[in-house]
Amino acid sequence: MITKTRTRLLLLWAILFVPGLALAQPPRGPLVVSPQVNADKTITFRYLAPQAKSVELSAQFEKGPVPMTKDAQGIWSATVGPVKPDIYPYNFRVDGVSVMDPANVAFFPNERFKASLVDVPGDTPLIHAMRDVPHGSINYEYYPSMEGTTGSLVVYTPPGYDQALSKKYPVYYLISGTTDTEETFFKVGKTNLILDNLIAEGKAKPMIIVMPYGNIAARIAEQKGGSKPADPTVRDGADAVKRANDFTTDLVSNVIPYVEKSYRAIPNRDNRAIGGFSRGGGQTLRTAFNNMDKFAWVCAYSSYLSPQEMDGNFSQIVAKPDQTNKQLKLLWVSVGSDDFLYKGTVEFMDYLKAKNVNFKSLITDGGHTWMNVKTYVAATTPLLFQSQTPRP
Amino acid sequence: MITKTRTRLLLLWAILFVPGLALAQPPRGPLVVSPQVNADKTITFRYLAPQAKSVELSAQFEKGPVPMTKDAQGIWSATVGPVKPDIYPYNFRVDGVSVMDPANVAFFPNERFKASLVDVPGDTPLIHAMRDVPHGSINYEYYPSMEGTTGSLVVYTPPGYDQALSKKYPVYYLISGTTDTEETFFKVGKTNLILDNLIAEGKAKPMIIVMPYGNIAARIAEQKGGSKPADPTVRDGADAVKRANDFTTDLVSNVIPYVEKSYRAIPNRDNRAIGGFSRGGGQTLRTAFNNMDKFAWVCAYSSYLSPQEMDGNFSQIVAKPDQTNKQLKLLWVSVGSDDFLYKGTVEFMDYLKAKNVNFKSLITDGGHTWMNVKTYVAATTPLLFQSQTPRP
Repeated sequence: MITKTRTRLLLLWAILFVPGLALAQPPRGPLVVSPQVNADKTITFRYLAPQAKSVELSAQFEKGPVPMTKDAQGIWSATVGPVKPDIYPYNFRVDGVSVMDPANVAFFPNERFKASLVDVPGDTPLIHAMRDVPHGSINYEYYPSMEGTTGSLVVYTPPGYDQALSKKYPVYYLISGTTDTEETFFKVGKTNLILDNLIAEGKAKPMIIVMPYGNIAARIAEQKGGSKPADPTVRDGADAVKRANDFTTDLVSNVIPYVEKSYRAIPNRDNRAIGGFSRGGGQTLRTAFNNMDKFAWVCAYSSYLSPQEMDGNFSQIVAKPDQTNKQLKLLWVSVGSDDFLYKGTVEFMDYLKAKNVNFKSLITDGGHTWMNVKTYVAATTPLLFQSQTPRP
Repeated sequence: MITKTRTRLLLLWAILFVPGLALAQPPRGPLVVSPQVNADKTITFRYLAPQAKSVELSAQFEKGPVPMTKDAQGIWSATVGPVKPDIYPYNFRVDGVSVMDPANVAFFPNERFKASLVDVPGDTPLIHAMRDVPHGSINYEYYPSMEGTTGSLVVYTPPGYDQALSKKYPVYYLISGTTDTEETFFKVGKTNLILDNLIAEGKAKPMIIVMPYGNIAARIAEQKGGSKPADPTVRDGADAVKRANDFTTDLVSNVIPYVEKSYRAIPNRDNRAIGGFSRGGGQTLRTAFNNMDKFAWVCAYSSYLSPQEMDGNFSQIVAKPDQTNKQLKLLWVSVGSDDFLYKGTVEFMDYLKAKNVNFKSLITDGGHTWMNVKTYVAATTPLLFQSQTPRP
């Protein structure tokens, strides 16, 4: 029986909680709080699915899937941890289907998978935490890109940028990994908050950070392809090389001119850095080694070039190491000991060492993850654009 | 048998297509192109799920779910349409579980559901299309909010804002719907592109648009709650009123001062507009009617206040209609004829008419959707901050 009060409550519920979307969603029912990070650093995950037969949690701090259990309302839950403070991707497997957490707005921008993010704060705020310091700004920008297409950039400007109107800044071009987007260093890497905190501590120079989208071919196909988008499954060597070259061309010919016209950037090599993660690290090394007149600071996170590619395409870098060492104010290579690219990255380090090319390196715990990317951003940005850079 | 060439290809594949995330994902297999908008405005949706028993498409241009069929590779697909050019939310139901399209980066930011977006372009570019015109910028900002928390805003600055450094601009405060976030007017509403296009056509005045997050209580709980976030299922009348009041207080006491300090805003009522969709429309009307000294332009999209609330809380608005009509340069109310709030909104229009309060109205086809929100944004922003506003 529905009482009058109950009817009123239901009406209020209908008015206050009107979704903007009438898709086939789980029926309205109990509102679910998930994830819930508890004071003891355990995390409770919840997912409403009265009809599901099995729900599992898949999280990057766990070795494997964690079974969840269903309560009388049809809410599945699991409490895990305590978990080491950091930001982790996770999702649910519902009867074998991977889904984001519908109750969580924090998401991992990516072309191929969908994951949510859970933030476990430290007892003292971590380097990527929102602290009570002056904040820079994140700007979404469009720029004229290749083949008449419009590219998109995410650009960080440091605190005070909009006040110090005569000041110019160095620029760090920062490229995310395969299947990531131009948003990933912002939404997952928290690059803006890391810089806000490092700048507040006087550890990093105020800088502009430009985050491009790495997959030029996909964007061109989307905007130009009409009914026939380029088939991304064609991934032979020649096509991959073309895509890498296209990225470099677009960055040098379109992105940098756009940024230096639109922002108060210092337009010379000593004030340009380039870095990236995974595929973005490969794009970083290729772009830098092909444009030694453009970048003086180079950071490869969890990535490398093979000795074969170095010998074949970048002999000028290793043939005259003294010149290279003079030109590059920083060459950084870092990787996690559990990263599946660990072996290749260490081989790259050994190669540079054998060729007497100076570089700074960091080997961390962990794998090919954005937890490590945040560590590398926090470790490298204090080195950029400093007149005295420590040498290994 | 794996040949040497095949091994090389697999290695290349591993290097080029390294996901940054090793969650329990569908195994790597054929890369899926989805959605594919065809030249004839049909759309092909695809989803890889070799093990699934049933996959359906749920899209806002369809009356109900559309069955998809599986090919030999395990890719489910459906081609639908032709579809009227617009941007539509959709997702898949995989064995009854709602999932976003993993192959699509365009998503609908929301607290409670997860949907992807498909953009069907018009034969001539629609008002929200990316056109070759000067683009403004979208800025993500943090501001000091209630109870020591940090709020987030998305702010549109018009083309030329960073060049015309002595120019000041009017500001439109624009609030999204229930369960939407501060990103929804940007990512789904394409408010920035609509304004870029209207400004390029000389139809709208260059303005700053500030998009706050409507759910203050949730943010405070998240940042202050620790192990005990406020239970959002408590939705009785008093709590709902408190939440609405908190939103108004935060907007007036924190957001506006932050914006007028950080941006070149003209800080007076004639140059402040407020508008919103659904719950955001209710927040708009309450905030405006409680702060007649702050806003001269008011737009309610798909929302209304009841005659009871008007009589009870806003008698000063209707008691002296001549004064109200002089103060408000625009009061706008619009709704779709299939909107489940249609009846209440029309009742609100009738109420205003009976009370001799001037307003402009628009009744469109369609429902409580972001397709309609885009129409309303495009219809109202040309009216804002104009010295001559047409009267009904």
